Amino acid sequence: MEQSRVDFLYLNEQDMIDAGVLNMHECIKEMEAVFRLLSSGDYVMGGANDNSHGMLIDFPTNPVHESMPKDGPDRRFMAMPAYLGGDYKVTGCKWYGSNIANVDKGLPRSILMMTLNDADTGAPLAYQSANLLSAWRTGAIPGVGAKYLANPDSEIFGVVGAGSIGTSSAEAILDVCENIKTVKIFDARESTAQTLKDRLSKEFTSLDIQIINTLEDAIKESDVINLATAGDANPTIEKEWIKPGALFTVSSSGDFDPEFAIEKMKLIVDNWAMYEATIDEDHYPYYNPTMGVIGRQLLDWIEEEKMDSSIITNIGDIITGKVEGRTSKDDIILYGLGGQPVYDVAWGYRVYQNALEKGIGTKLNLWDKAYQAR
Amino acid sequence: MEQSRVDFLYLNEQDMIDAGVLNMHECIKEMEAVFRLLSSGDYVMGGANDNSHGMLIDFPTNPVHESMPKDGPDRRFMAMPAYLGGDYKVTGCKWYGSNIANVDKGLPRSILMMTLNDADTGAPLAYQSANLLSAWRTGAIPGVGAKYLANPDSEIFGVVGAGSIGTSSAEAILDVCENIKTVKIFDARESTAQTLKDRLSKEFTSLDIQIINTLEDAIKESDVINLATAGDANPTIEKEWIKPGALFTVSSSGDFDPEFAIEKMKLIVDNWAMYEATIDEDHYPYYNPTMGVIGRQLLDWIEEEKMDSSIITNIGDIITGKVEGRTSKDDIILYGLGGQPVYDVAWGYRVYQNALEKGIGTKLNLWDKAYQAR
Repeated sequence: MEQSRVDFLYLNEQDMIDAGVLNMHECIKEMEAVFRLLSSGDYVMGGANDNSHGMLIDFPTNPVHESMPKDGPDRRFMAMPAYLGGDYKVTGCKWYGSNIANVDKGLPRSILMMTLNDADTGAPLAYQSANLLSAWRTGAIPGVGAKYLANPDSEIFGVVGAGSIGTSSAEAILDVCENIKTVKIFDARESTAQTLKDRLSKEFTSLDIQIINTLEDAIKESDVINLATAGDANPTIEKEWIKPGALFTVSSSGDFDPEFAIEKMKLIVDNWAMYEATIDEDHYPYYNPTMGVIGRQLLDWIEEEKMDSSIITNIGDIITGKVEGRTSKDDIILYGLGGQPVYDVAWGYRVYQNALEKGIGTKLNLWDKAYQAR
Repeated sequence: MEQSRVDFLYLNEQDMIDAGVLNMHECIKEMEAVFRLLSSGDYVMGGANDNSHGMLIDFPTNPVHESMPKDGPDRRFMAMPAYLGGDYKVTGCKWYGSNIANVDKGLPRSILMMTLNDADTGAPLAYQSANLLSAWRTGAIPGVGAKYLANPDSEIFGVVGAGSIGTSSAEAILDVCENIKTVKIFDARESTAQTLKDRLSKEFTSLDIQIINTLEDAIKESDVINLATAGDANPTIEKEWIKPGALFTVSSSGDFDPEFAIEKMKLIVDNWAMYEATIDEDHYPYYNPTMGVIGRQLLDWIEEEKMDSSIITNIGDIITGKVEGRTSKDDIILYGLGGQPVYDVAWGYRVYQNALEKGIGTKLNLWDKAYQAR
């Protein structure tokens, strides 16, 4: 049998931009498609229950070996593999390193790369810069949630955390919540808040965009609140601040009163099985404020017998109509997000298709003829 | 803060060859260094016990969704991340797809790629074709075992499975076992056996190299036997065939009589904690002939209360002198291997260093200035 040549496409960050990675409106559509596939089961992720977020490499607080990296805010590596069916039928793996100390070196907090592979042969199709891919797909997920869960007449939008995820989430939520009039931005670094304000002001000229100084002000009158903090931030959300009907979309840490959250909020997540997979991968307590993920907080509350998992709903089951989402104007909703490799596969694949169509990227040859046939 | 440019090196298969990936003698030295680091704990892998082989994506035998890939021989994707300390201090992730049906398409059974990353920032250092990297590091591991565990006067070497892993394992074992005079090659495909014979004949001109027709003939008089079968092969090794003092180095399936193995063989593995990690990642029975790994067979025997883990030794602890390996000329040793991402990190990093030194590879730019700073 003649050996087959393998080529694949390298897309650096500028290529990804040129191929449309920043098109939030399209990204939200893809993420909705992913949630439908999640609801129908047409995907495979890792772990014993085929629903793992990915495989974490983290470091000890006090390593025995002096040269070993030490644990720190956001410090980790993560491999996130998945197969996604539907119109995609492709496999991929996102792999990244994250360290908040990067910011002082002129580097993004996380540096991410995505590989897309032929689901049959495993041959690489594309190797992509995944910082924007990740930020946009992560931002689109609150957008999908806001589309299905926010009160349609929501007017005030509170942004807590204006970094890369906060930015893309804000774009997504503004894309779907057409009646927003006011945006209140809170970030521990005022310059970060200002960057987001400048950006949104250009894109959404009719909005009243305010930089505010306290977390409370970002929550109090808001109909939709997005939490996307970084590092060791873990904002305490006082129950007195929460407006009836409010939707919290939470991609990061968030310190909610357990009794209030369990009894007064509807608990909706991206994929509950993914959090259940965590039980095999980690130890109680699962919630860790430096890598805060609300679904892990729910795992802890279940472990502590404060609640059980029957009150948790998957957004995919709401989108496909299997389960009702918001049933009253006054429902307060906590929509907790952890990130899933299937999002990266979907958005990565669409951007790759765009790149192929437009002739963007660098074609790389793996081999003309493999050195070993078997 | 000025944003920092990120570049990295792409090494295709030919680049990897030019940079020395096929230098088995050097690879064995690196793998010995890795085992010393494993014994001292200067590494981190994934999973709850930081010792996972990696994260598997596999497919159902009868998928509900018609377009989903079906389970089949060797069919899987695997993400294998690790940090390795010592002189390396680098992080990496191997990601591959495998499908025995590839062979009929003129492609290798597995197509593997390796990413190496700065352990502090997570920035990619290199993206490498990893077929030969994998095959050579996998082959070097039986070599390290043979160096420490084979009888020094071993003269007859049986090769069971002459594919890419069988080939590199044979090279490694011949590198360390200097008294081998006869090589007996058995493979289900005679053409595969012939390819290995031709290759070894060129490199080791004084050897008597025979292609044999039965498994029994490959085992019976052999002092060292390497098992590296592929697909759904699961060779049954009859205890009557086994010579006193024999060493089995096993990178694949192998059907040993449990009573004989437990009572008459010394059980040595690459890293027992890696197999323990499997308990979180999979369900009993852990041993699966289509992905046969002897360590998983041991897990099943423990689960079935045939043995306990106290009789298992890590090769790293033998190399560092913490535990004795062979104590008698007649010891029959089963050295079971599962593959670890730390091997890929080590060998990938050395080949990358060689490539830098020799100016091999394609420099790729990730960004001049990241689009988002945080």
